[in-house]
Amino acid sequence: MSEKLEQLKTLLAEVADLNNAQALLGWDQQTYMPPGGNDARGNQLATIGKISHQKFTSDKIGQLLGDLEKEFAGADADSDEVRLLKVTRHEYDQATRVPADFVAEFAVVTTKAFEAWVEARKKSDFSIFQPHLEKVVELNQRYVSFFPPADHPYDVLLDQYERGMKTADVKEIFDALRPQQVELLQAIAEQPQVDDDFLHVEYDEQKMWDFSEVIASKFGYDWERGRQDKSAHPFTTGFSINDVRITTRFEEDNPTVMLFSTMHETGHGLYELGSNQAYERTPLAGGTSLAVHESQSRMWENLVGRSLPFWEYFYPEFQKLFPGQVGNLDLDTFYKGINKVESSLIRVNADEATYNMHIMLRLELEIGMVEGAVKAKDLPELWNAKMEEYLGITPPNDAKGVLQDVHWSYGSMGYFSTYALGNLISAQLWEKIAADIPDLPEQFRKGEFGALLAWLREKIHVHGSKFEPQEMVQRVTGSKIDAAPYVRYLKQKYSDIYGL
Amino acid sequence: MSEKLEQLKTLLAEVADLNNAQALLGWDQQTYMPPGGNDARGNQLATIGKISHQKFTSDKIGQLLGDLEKEFAGADADSDEVRLLKVTRHEYDQATRVPADFVAEFAVVTTKAFEAWVEARKKSDFSIFQPHLEKVVELNQRYVSFFPPADHPYDVLLDQYERGMKTADVKEIFDALRPQQVELLQAIAEQPQVDDDFLHVEYDEQKMWDFSEVIASKFGYDWERGRQDKSAHPFTTGFSINDVRITTRFEEDNPTVMLFSTMHETGHGLYELGSNQAYERTPLAGGTSLAVHESQSRMWENLVGRSLPFWEYFYPEFQKLFPGQVGNLDLDTFYKGINKVESSLIRVNADEATYNMHIMLRLELEIGMVEGAVKAKDLPELWNAKMEEYLGITPPNDAKGVLQDVHWSYGSMGYFSTYALGNLISAQLWEKIAADIPDLPEQFRKGEFGALLAWLREKIHVHGSKFEPQEMVQRVTGSKIDAAPYVRYLKQKYSDIYGL
Repeated sequence: MSEKLEQLKTLLAEVADLNNAQALLGWDQQTYMPPGGNDARGNQLATIGKISHQKFTSDKIGQLLGDLEKEFAGADADSDEVRLLKVTRHEYDQATRVPADFVAEFAVVTTKAFEAWVEARKKSDFSIFQPHLEKVVELNQRYVSFFPPADHPYDVLLDQYERGMKTADVKEIFDALRPQQVELLQAIAEQPQVDDDFLHVEYDEQKMWDFSEVIASKFGYDWERGRQDKSAHPFTTGFSINDVRITTRFEEDNPTVMLFSTMHETGHGLYELGSNQAYERTPLAGGTSLAVHESQSRMWENLVGRSLPFWEYFYPEFQKLFPGQVGNLDLDTFYKGINKVESSLIRVNADEATYNMHIMLRLELEIGMVEGAVKAKDLPELWNAKMEEYLGITPPNDAKGVLQDVHWSYGSMGYFSTYALGNLISAQLWEKIAADIPDLPEQFRKGEFGALLAWLREKIHVHGSKFEPQEMVQRVTGSKIDAAPYVRYLKQKYSDIYGL
Repeated sequence: MSEKLEQLKTLLAEVADLNNAQALLGWDQQTYMPPGGNDARGNQLATIGKISHQKFTSDKIGQLLGDLEKEFAGADADSDEVRLLKVTRHEYDQATRVPADFVAEFAVVTTKAFEAWVEARKKSDFSIFQPHLEKVVELNQRYVSFFPPADHPYDVLLDQYERGMKTADVKEIFDALRPQQVELLQAIAEQPQVDDDFLHVEYDEQKMWDFSEVIASKFGYDWERGRQDKSAHPFTTGFSINDVRITTRFEEDNPTVMLFSTMHETGHGLYELGSNQAYERTPLAGGTSLAVHESQSRMWENLVGRSLPFWEYFYPEFQKLFPGQVGNLDLDTFYKGINKVESSLIRVNADEATYNMHIMLRLELEIGMVEGAVKAKDLPELWNAKMEEYLGITPPNDAKGVLQDVHWSYGSMGYFSTYALGNLISAQLWEKIAADIPDLPEQFRKGEFGALLAWLREKIHVHGSKFEPQEMVQRVTGSKIDAAPYVRYLKQKYSDIYGL
């Protein structure tokens, strides 16, 4: 290997160690840290973040990158070496274009914005958050200004989460999706509603936890290289390709949510665990983008975990565990209940058919704010109008409307669309998988998920961050990200359930 | 405040953040980390350790220290500022005198030594470990050579754990202790043995865990600033004055050990939690030395937790929890059972009366090795001879003899004596406490430990690392570390129990 490449990898490994340590500080903060540790944890995260940033943006790494790009100019564009340089260049440019004093200001503004958001949501009073949101928008606009002019300013924000993705692409995808999804929702709304009362009774938490781990094991989650813990908001994090952890939560009034949370995070976890081991301590380790990540989590949660074949295998066991709750309930009713479609106010509780509507609403408002066309002060009104238009309901207050998500208070813009893109990609991959493994439903009915995991590993997981998201989807399915498979999937699924 | 002092504190705070992050990596490694994370964790610990060392040994800190020592030359020698400079100077000299390539070599040698020790202990074959121990001794001798000549080379090693402590002091203390402790043990051995069969039956682990937390709470452990988890070897660690965690363990064949482990670690934890908050992110935070730390843990474990007044309060509750095990057992028998004295092979299982003998044996061998008078190859024979001399028993094999402790494989020499010194200090403090709070036993009988904790906080905890161990003991008790109170304590306690 080139001596300079060796040098670069040594420096990147050190940065990876720091980032992994930082991730552990974050994991602990959300799982086990006692409240007293909070202030110190903030200092620790800030110090390690600063050192990692300094080390990554060093002149030495810039010099090595430049030299190596010349050295590998004629090399195979799909080789690991060339791709490592490309991914590192992308991250390096993002990290070096943004001045240190901007980063510091961003941290100060968002710390205050988060506090204000917590208070605003508690009091359901948007005016408390509004001035902070205005600053967040202004910071995002300034962030954009550090980069070369793009087709659309929002491209720069998207690029933080989805390398190479354009605002025009996202708009085109969602423009195709929106009318079809609205039409489907209207058709469902005209049908009699399914029963899901059995989901909202008491279930034993420990039994549910144990069952969630049975499912994760069946999916192929490797407990020697991971673990599950509890947190207020479920998440997946990793400190190595061989130490990727998931969390889940128990909701008293919706106890089976724990199962779907675990399946969702298991999907993220399997993706991270599946990276080529040669990518350890390099920027190629781990998933390539939030949307592709979400395609994995949503696939295991929804296309697998809310499918009939899955429950044909698992339902008898579930009934045995919870005889009082579902012992006398037939599978068909259970299946319909866990797939109930209902317009609701809160994104994180939304079902498969309505979820994307929540995202489109946010995306449109975000783009408007970044363009300057939408003012923060008008947000509650616009939010409520779009909720009425897309889902036929109006939030009774801002806490259940415009204040429900934490993302803007963190300063994040450009993030939301990745959730919906993940849904679309999951269905797009699914059509390809169904063609490659025709007896997949039969396998699920026998509790076998190995062929699916092997397929995902080979086509997606093993490549880590090597390919850009659009490129990855194109390589695997032959087309760019496309809403059609997801619409086909929803239509077929809900035609069966609601008898459309 | 002096501008330079402000600068120094900023740099030290960054180092503290790194060290605290490293401590969390270590805590996780011993509590929750899945096995797959092991290699990556080693890299993370090494990277953060290296960066912390680089930052702490920077010329900038050296320059500031030198300037500030001049600036504060005439200031109150007991002020926090002067003491911060003194402690920092001590750590800075230790860190800068040792060359980086020595540190790297030390890490390599001890990694291999640890692996060899694990194998040697498993096979009970000292010859596997011997060449590694020879290298460890040689490294310790080289370590000593980096420092100015001391009265005794072992002083330099002791000074790593006990600032200012001299080999001559330790020898003098133990020379006074040894004959009296041997005499006591012989007297006990002539008496009929007490019964402790009831300790070695089955107890429910979860109930024992819950009871251990009840005791920790009564001692004043603050769960808002700490937590308890399980680990193979109990320990205490902290990432802030306000996030200090303990661990405990359950032994199937000796279930009550969990209680005493928790009490022991709670003692360490209370010390760390009690530091002056102004010391956060400075080298003054946390306990001043391992021996003073051990005085706190042993006090809560033994002088409190194995005392009759303590159990006069807690025994009825314990009996209610475990009616099958101790429901019909009188308190006197229980109290004698948990204080049974018996010569045994393994240090960590030793009782209060025999523990120090294990330490003296190790200390003498260590000093001999560092002096060059004792050769590694002769160690098993010397070990067994001393065991016979001090405790009247001979290990049947090396696993239960010279190979039982991990410390040498880590490269640690100078550490063992701190355990015994801690015992001595605990009794020395206890005599002072008994004079200051005459009704302490009455308080314990009512389950009240607040006055004891308040005393410890005011006299010891709040000062963090401000005072050297000998200085601390002198300030609080009026004398230097002295074996006499511990001997008086043992004699009185065991006279009652064994009717001497």
